[in-house]
Amino acid sequence: MDELLTRLRAGLPADALITDPDVTASYAHDAASFCEAGAPAVVVLPRTVEEVQHVMRTATALRVPVVPQGARTGLSGGANASEGCVVLSLTRMDRILEINPVDRIAVVEPGVVNAALSRAVAEQGLSYPPDPSSWEMCTIGGNIGTASGGLCCVKYGVTAEYVLGLDVVLADGRLLTTGRRTAKGVAGYDLTRLFVGSEGTLGIVVRAILALRPKPPQQLVLAAEFPSAVAACDAVCAIMERGHTPSLLELMDRTTLQAVNRLGSMGLPETTEALLLAAFDTPDPAPDLAAVADLCTAAGATQVVPAEDAAESELLLQARRMSLTALEAVSSATMIDDVCVPRSQLAAMLDGTTAIAAKYDLTIGVCVHAGDGNTHPVVCFDHHDPDESRRARESFDAIMALGLELGGTITGEHGVGVLKKDWLARELGPVGVELQRSLRRAFDPLGILNPGKLF
Amino acid sequence: MDELLTRLRAGLPADALITDPDVTASYAHDAASFCEAGAPAVVVLPRTVEEVQHVMRTATALRVPVVPQGARTGLSGGANASEGCVVLSLTRMDRILEINPVDRIAVVEPGVVNAALSRAVAEQGLSYPPDPSSWEMCTIGGNIGTASGGLCCVKYGVTAEYVLGLDVVLADGRLLTTGRRTAKGVAGYDLTRLFVGSEGTLGIVVRAILALRPKPPQQLVLAAEFPSAVAACDAVCAIMERGHTPSLLELMDRTTLQAVNRLGSMGLPETTEALLLAAFDTPDPAPDLAAVADLCTAAGATQVVPAEDAAESELLLQARRMSLTALEAVSSATMIDDVCVPRSQLAAMLDGTTAIAAKYDLTIGVCVHAGDGNTHPVVCFDHHDPDESRRARESFDAIMALGLELGGTITGEHGVGVLKKDWLARELGPVGVELQRSLRRAFDPLGILNPGKLF
Repeated sequence: MDELLTRLRAGLPADALITDPDVTASYAHDAASFCEAGAPAVVVLPRTVEEVQHVMRTATALRVPVVPQGARTGLSGGANASEGCVVLSLTRMDRILEINPVDRIAVVEPGVVNAALSRAVAEQGLSYPPDPSSWEMCTIGGNIGTASGGLCCVKYGVTAEYVLGLDVVLADGRLLTTGRRTAKGVAGYDLTRLFVGSEGTLGIVVRAILALRPKPPQQLVLAAEFPSAVAACDAVCAIMERGHTPSLLELMDRTTLQAVNRLGSMGLPETTEALLLAAFDTPDPAPDLAAVADLCTAAGATQVVPAEDAAESELLLQARRMSLTALEAVSSATMIDDVCVPRSQLAAMLDGTTAIAAKYDLTIGVCVHAGDGNTHPVVCFDHHDPDESRRARESFDAIMALGLELGGTITGEHGVGVLKKDWLARELGPVGVELQRSLRRAFDPLGILNPGKLF
Repeated sequence: MDELLTRLRAGLPADALITDPDVTASYAHDAASFCEAGAPAVVVLPRTVEEVQHVMRTATALRVPVVPQGARTGLSGGANASEGCVVLSLTRMDRILEINPVDRIAVVEPGVVNAALSRAVAEQGLSYPPDPSSWEMCTIGGNIGTASGGLCCVKYGVTAEYVLGLDVVLADGRLLTTGRRTAKGVAGYDLTRLFVGSEGTLGIVVRAILALRPKPPQQLVLAAEFPSAVAACDAVCAIMERGHTPSLLELMDRTTLQAVNRLGSMGLPETTEALLLAAFDTPDPAPDLAAVADLCTAAGATQVVPAEDAAESELLLQARRMSLTALEAVSSATMIDDVCVPRSQLAAMLDGTTAIAAKYDLTIGVCVHAGDGNTHPVVCFDHHDPDESRRARESFDAIMALGLELGGTITGEHGVGVLKKDWLARELGPVGVELQRSLRRAFDPLGILNPGKLF
C-alpha cells in the first residue's frame, strides 16, 4: 500500500491522488443497486495519457487491480471498486480535441460529458446521437465502456456505431491505437469494436474518434393511449412492419405514468394501460405521423394525440426521460432490468413481466424502448423487508430467464458488470464464455483490469 | 494426403469432395491479380453445419490448413489456396432461412449470393444495403469475411453494420454462436464484429443474422462535370459539410470515363476531368438535388445534369459499377488499390495519385466512393514488360504510403489478404500487430485457418 502510493506519486501531480478514506469511499459504487463493492486503496484522477500509462505500469508492477470510472452513472456495478484497487477516474480528461464538419468526426478525451459533446457539435450543425438517460452527467468514456444506448437507437443505433477509432492504454501501460479517422476501413481485426462494451476489462480508453451526423430537424412526437400493453406492442410491430423509421418509439406502462406524474406533475394520462410515444425527425414528418396514428387506432388506441409543436414534443420526451428516476421514487429500493427481445416478442415479454409481478406479489413498472424491443422493468420493493427483497431478486432473475426464452438478451444497453455476471454465461454458452475469457487473457494476462466484472 | 481424403470422406457425401487436380486448381485464386497461391489438396463443398464441423475436426487432427471460400470475387487474395490445403467452399450452403419484416432481420447461410438476398428481401418491402460491385456473384459469407462495402456506404454503411449474430465453426470444429436477433445487445465482448473482416482466419461462418432496412424510394442521380478532380473534391466536401446525406456520391476520372465508354458505349463525357454522381433516395429528393447542383456549380462544375428519371439514374449507376471492369480492359494487367482517406484529404489523395502516375510513367485510372474518401486507383500496365511491372508494383505501394501519410487506411473495403499483408503492419504499428496476433492465436492455436493471410 505504501509502495503503491509512493510509486504512483512518482509520476503524478499531487492533486491527482485522493487517499482520504472518506472521499475514496464515495468512489466505490456506480448507480446500480445491490452490487458488491470493495474499498479503493486510492483514487487517481489523471489529466494526460502519460499519467494513465504511469498508473497502469505501476499497477502491473505491483499486481494491483485497477477499476476505470467515468461519471459512475452505470446501472450494473461495472464501475464498482474492488477491495484495495486503484480507482482510475477519467473525469478530468475532458477536452474535446477536434470537431470536423467535413469528415463528420469528433476527437475527444474519455471524460467529456455526453451532453457537452452533443451541444458542442450542435453548434456546428452536427449531432452525436447516442443519448442515454444520464446524458447530462455520463461521460463518453463510460458510454464506450458500456456501449450505451438511449432513446435514439431505433433510428440511429447505439454508441458502438459511432466509435471509429480509439487510443487505449493497455494493462501493462503500452499505448494502442485502433481504428481510423476515415468513413470506412478493414485493415485487420476490429479491435475498436472489441473495446466498446468491454466494461474496462481490456484497456483504458484515453481518446476516441467519434462519427457525427448532420443535425436532424427537431422531432415531432405523437402520443397514443392503449387499453393494454399488448395492443401497444401490436401497434409497434405494425409501425415497423410498414417500413416507418421513427426517431423514437417508446412505451410507458400505467405504473410508470403514475410515478412520472407524482415526481414531475407532468399531467400524463393515469388511467391508460400503456402510452406509446412515436416521433419523426424528417423534413416533413406529417405523412409518417398520420400513418402511425392510423396504425395505432387500428391496434386499439383509445386516444391518439400528436404534439402541437416542438415544445410540447420536448415535454413528452422529458416525461419519458424521467421514468427511471420516477420509478425509483416509488419504493425504498428498486432493481432496474434491461432485457431486450426481438420486437415481435415484445408483447409476450410484457405479458410475462406482468405475470411475474403477480407471482412475486411486487410492483414492477415498465418503460420500454419499444422500437428496439428493449424493456426496462423496474422492480420496486422495500429493502428492509427480507422476504420482499428475496422476491425482488427472484423476479429480477425471472425476467432475464423470460427474455432469454423469447430469443432475447439479458442486457440491451446497461451492460453486465457484477449485477448480471452469473447470467452472462447462460446467454453465451460454454464455448462463448471460454473464447471470451481467452480474449480477456490476451489483453490482460495478470487479470488486473476491473477484476470480478463480466465473468 | 490419403489419410486426409479417407478421413474427410468418412463424414461427407461423395459429391462434396473434388480431388481432380484440374478442377481443384480452378479454386486456387480469387479475383486479385499477382497474389501467390498454392495447389489445394482437395476442395470440399459442404451443405450442412455438421459437414463443416467434420472438415474442421479432420483438419485439426491432421494439422492441415483450411482456406474458406465464397464466390472468389475478392480483390486481395484473401481466398487464395495454400499449398496442400483443404479449400472449404461454402457456396452450396445457400439457403435463406428466414426473412422477418417485423424484426427486420434475415437469417442466411454463408453461400447466399448478395443479389439473391437483396431481391428476396425487396419482395417484402425491405432492403439489405451492402452492395459491392460484384453483388450479382459474391456471397454473404464472403462479404462478412472481408467486411465489404459498396456504393451505398456513404449513407448506409458497410457490411459490418448489418451483421447482428453469427454461427461460427471454430478451428477445432466446435460451434460458436455470437450476437443476437435483437436490435440491441451488450452481453460480453462483441465477437460478432471481430469475425466480420477477419478474412477466414478466426473461424468458418455457417449462418448469419442480418439487419434489414425498409426499402427506400428509388434514388435519383445528378451528374456534374468538373475541370479537375480537385474541384470535384471541393464539391464533395461542401456537400457533406452542409449536412446533406446522399445515398451515393461517386467520382470517376477521365481515364475511367473513357474506359467505361469503350467497354459499354455509355456515352459518358470524355473531355471532362472528373464526373461526380450524387444521388438521393428520400421521399422528396428535389431540394437536396437542387442544393447539391448549386454547390457543384460553386465548386466549378461546367455541367450539372440531373437524371430525368429512375431509368436514366440506373444507367449512370451501371456506368459506375462497370468502372473497375472497364479499367481492367485498358491494359494486359491491372492492380486495384483501395486506399481510404478522411474526405477532407481526398483532393490531396487524388492529386498525389496523379503525381505518382506521372513519376512512374503509368496510366492510373481512378474511381472513388467520394463520400467515403475511398479511392480505387487502378494501375494499368503490361505484365509482359518487366520494367513496367516493377513500376506498377512500386506505384501501387506509393499510393498506399500516400494514403497512410494523409491519415487514411490501406484498405477501405477490399481487405488485406496476401496483397497488402506487408502493409498491414505499417498501418497497425507494433503494439497493434502483437495484439492482433495474440487474438488470432486465441481462436486458432494451431494456425490452420487461412494461414499466410493478414499477417
